[in-house]
Amino acid sequence: MNNKYQHIQEAAYQANMQLPKLGLVLFTFGNVSASDNALGVFAIKPSGVPYDELSPAKMVIVDFEGKTVEGSLRPSSDTLTHAVLYKHWPHIGGIVHTHSTYATAWAQSQRSIPNYGTTHADHTTVDIPCAPPMSDAMIAGDYEYETGFQIMNCLAEKGLSYQEVEMILVGNHAPFTWGKTPDKAVYNSAVLETVAQMAYLTEQINKEAPRLKDALIKKHFERKHGPNSYYGQ
Amino acid sequence: MNNKYQHIQEAAYQANMQLPKLGLVLFTFGNVSASDNALGVFAIKPSGVPYDELSPAKMVIVDFEGKTVEGSLRPSSDTLTHAVLYKHWPHIGGIVHTHSTYATAWAQSQRSIPNYGTTHADHTTVDIPCAPPMSDAMIAGDYEYETGFQIMNCLAEKGLSYQEVEMILVGNHAPFTWGKTPDKAVYNSAVLETVAQMAYLTEQINKEAPRLKDALIKKHFERKHGPNSYYGQ
Amino acid sequence: MNNKYQHIQEAAYQANMQLPKLGLVLFTFGNVSASDNALGVFAIKPSGVPYDELSPAKMVIVDFEGKTVEGSLRPSSDTLTHAVLYKHWPHIGGIVHTHSTYATAWAQSQRSIPNYGTTHADHTTVDIPCAPPMSDAMIAGDYEYETGFQIMNCLAEKGLSYQEVEMILVGNHAPFTWGKTPDKAVYNSAVLETVAQMAYLTEQINKEAPRLKDALIKKHFERKHGPNSYYGQ
Amino acid sequence: MNNKYQHIQEAAYQANMQLPKLGLVLFTFGNVSASDNALGVFAIKPSGVPYDELSPAKMVIVDFEGKTVEGSLRPSSDTLTHAVLYKHWPHIGGIVHTHSTYATAWAQSQRSIPNYGTTHADHTTVDIPCAPPMSDAMIAGDYEYETGFQIMNCLAEKGLSYQEVEMILVGNHAPFTWGKTPDKAVYNSAVLETVAQMAYLTEQINKEAPRLKDALIKKHFERKHGPNSYYGQ
Repeated sequence: MNNKYQHIQEAAYQANMQLPKLGLVLFTFGNVSASDNALGVFAIKPSGVPYDELSPAKMVIVDFEGKTVEGSLRPSSDTLTHAVLYKHWPHIGGIVHTHSTYATAWAQSQRSIPNYGTTHADHTTVDIPCAPPMSDAMIAGDYEYETGFQIMNCLAEKGLSYQEVEMILVGNHAPFTWGKTPDKAVYNSAVLETVAQMAYLTEQINKEAPRLKDALIKKHFERKHGPNSYYGQ
Repeated sequence: MNNKYQHIQEAAYQANMQLPKLGLVLFTFGNVSASDNALGVFAIKPSGVPYDELSPAKMVIVDFEGKTVEGSLRPSSDTLTHAVLYKHWPHIGGIVHTHSTYATAWAQSQRSIPNYGTTHADHTTVDIPCAPPMSDAMIAGDYEYETGFQIMNCLAEKGLSYQEVEMILVGNHAPFTWGKTPDKAVYNSAVLETVAQMAYLTEQINKEAPRLKDALIKKHFERKHGPNSYYGQ
Repeated sequence: MNNKYQHIQEAAYQANMQLPKLGLVLFTFGNVSASDNALGVFAIKPSGVPYDELSPAKMVIVDFEGKTVEGSLRPSSDTLTHAVLYKHWPHIGGIVHTHSTYATAWAQSQRSIPNYGTTHADHTTVDIPCAPPMSDAMIAGDYEYETGFQIMNCLAEKGLSYQEVEMILVGNHAPFTWGKTPDKAVYNSAVLETVAQMAYLTEQINKEAPRLKDALIKKHFERKHGPNSYYGQ
Repeated sequence: MNNKYQHIQEAAYQANMQLPKLGLVLFTFGNVSASDNALGVFAIKPSGVPYDELSPAKMVIVDFEGKTVEGSLRPSSDTLTHAVLYKHWPHIGGIVHTHSTYATAWAQSQRSIPNYGTTHADHTTVDIPCAPPMSDAMIAGDYEYETGFQIMNCLAEKGLSYQEVEMILVGNHAPFTWGKTPDKAVYNSAVLETVAQMAYLTEQINKEAPRLKDALIKKHFERKHGPNSYYGQ
């Protein structure tokens, strides 16, 4: 059988299956997609199907307008958010949405996560942004589609590129992360959850805890990223 | 052998066995029942029997007055609470009682759980109610029987239907959840525990965290419930 | 081979092995003993031996004065505390000492654990006492022996019997629990850890959380204990 | 094949593999090294390699100046910190760096961990020191090399020997631990994480919690250490 989408179905399946292993989802509260930007489509988890009933073939193929291209199941209810981001961000290959406990608590608190240490700075130089809850008009309109714009608008207002920070909190809702591959996006979700827990504990231990200073932020980020990075092989 | 209760014994057994897997019980601190509303009976866990010694045949059959109909073991000490709820709520098929950590802490705090985010709103539009501790007369009387009435009275006072909110905290005690099936009631117990943990963390991170606004509450609940729902298959 | 101590060695071994399974110990930070009160001896874990290297035969036999009766290994460094309690409390058959996280945090806080709910009241009617740190003279003397007296003195000062409350915190140190059997003592350690976590969370959620009222304390304790108990088989 | 470094490669590998089992690392956020002080080299984890792809042969051999002596992979990005400490501390045989959750939160809080109880005192008599973040000049210079000096300077300023306290927090960053063997250093990392969690909880439960008094500090440390110790076999 010839299936030109098999590679992204396989990638999306493998990435989705990592979420329960990493303790990032309860039941079906999460979804991962994998895109093929040349074909202009992505594979995404079907809505509400338990993880142990998933298979690569069940991943639904959707185009960047949010239209189902292939698959008999209904795609994740968050599909339009994924579609909007893929359409506008040409350099990503995977998106993850979870309701992981600590990141969701920060989203519910409507606060960006302050950069308190090198665990955070190893992954991004800035506070992890929290987009404000949407306007009532946006919510009543095409909700998931507007969620994508809310994410992009938040980055734009803060002057951030989606390549500088690969994670965001949507206020009152929960986190989204992305990356060049679905695996990188899942990795970012796990990092975000850990950073969110550490920041919460930091404030509990010292209400006056200072932000990481600029020199350390720069140093740690450059260890892992950019032309002079020296982390990894 | 002809056993007309086998289907609810099997359902109650399977649902009870989920509680330790989901991390909702220590030792025997929980119980699930499964009802057959046409027969007017329910199957419930025997009292104080460890989970690994349970079997479908050990589930005790009790009628809606709380009288044991079949079974040689003593039913859960909370049986009368289950009986009262089944008698008055014709559209449920399962009830769960646990002492799960975060939900119990809210019950001990005698506070309803505020609706701080979409994880909560996906399951109910209202704050998860906390029934006040019972009067001394109720406690000294038929305690478990009165617990059922305390639950119903709390919903009535708040103008809530048991079909709108399938979970409650009993003040100073612990949570009860229910649903159309025992599996749905167990699912609700796990959701409640997660929502309780997230709400606790939200208040720790931001003491002034606002409630979820009405437009989002409505939107998220309608995504999963009602005529225009579009979550799941 | 005739070993008149085999029954308590086996019981102590099995009970010790439950501690890591219940998440109550890191490395070797805990010990359980099992007594034979007719023989006037108890079997206790050897000091500092990892759990996966234990066997029933390695359990050391010690008399109620703390003298090793049989066994080539050095008994737990807390052995004298166990000996003192067995000597003075004729109706117990097992003692457990752990440094479980939440119970130890309460001990370090030098606060008794308030009775905030029925999970607590199911096991004891009173606040779980925290004995004050010992005097410098007691510490410089026979430390572990004096720890036993510190525990007994604390109960005496509060007018409590060791049969009413089977658990205590030693201030700045950690919990001790006991029971008619080593298994019951282990059960009490797990209950204490859960109750300690719930009480901590209760105060975080509501600084003004009231104690459980007397009618509920009485009711829940009597459900599980005493002549009219109706919990279990 | 004759490999004169095989013993430290094996020791480093075994010790590294303990980190995920003990819940001390997410992904590759940690590293352990094992030294042979006679040969003047140590074996250390390669940078950014997932734990399940490690093997003894992949451990990189580095001398005490930080120069790779043998191995085709790039050593951990923290290698120079290890090198500095081995060069100056002749009596250690292993070093561990993690970003374990609670210890890292204390590091981010820039607070030393107060000695609140015997779990702490069993391992060190003093507060676990938190070194201040480095100066901008140190950070811009040879960062990992300077981290080693920051650790040594902090101990010197507090008048502590590396043999008295085998663990430290680097402000805004994360913990380092060490010991006579790599296994002891890993043990110390797990102890530190537990002590960090207990100290955090202690302050939450009682903001006025007093430090452990001197008599108890002395007693507990001497039970496990020094000429009159009586813990273990």
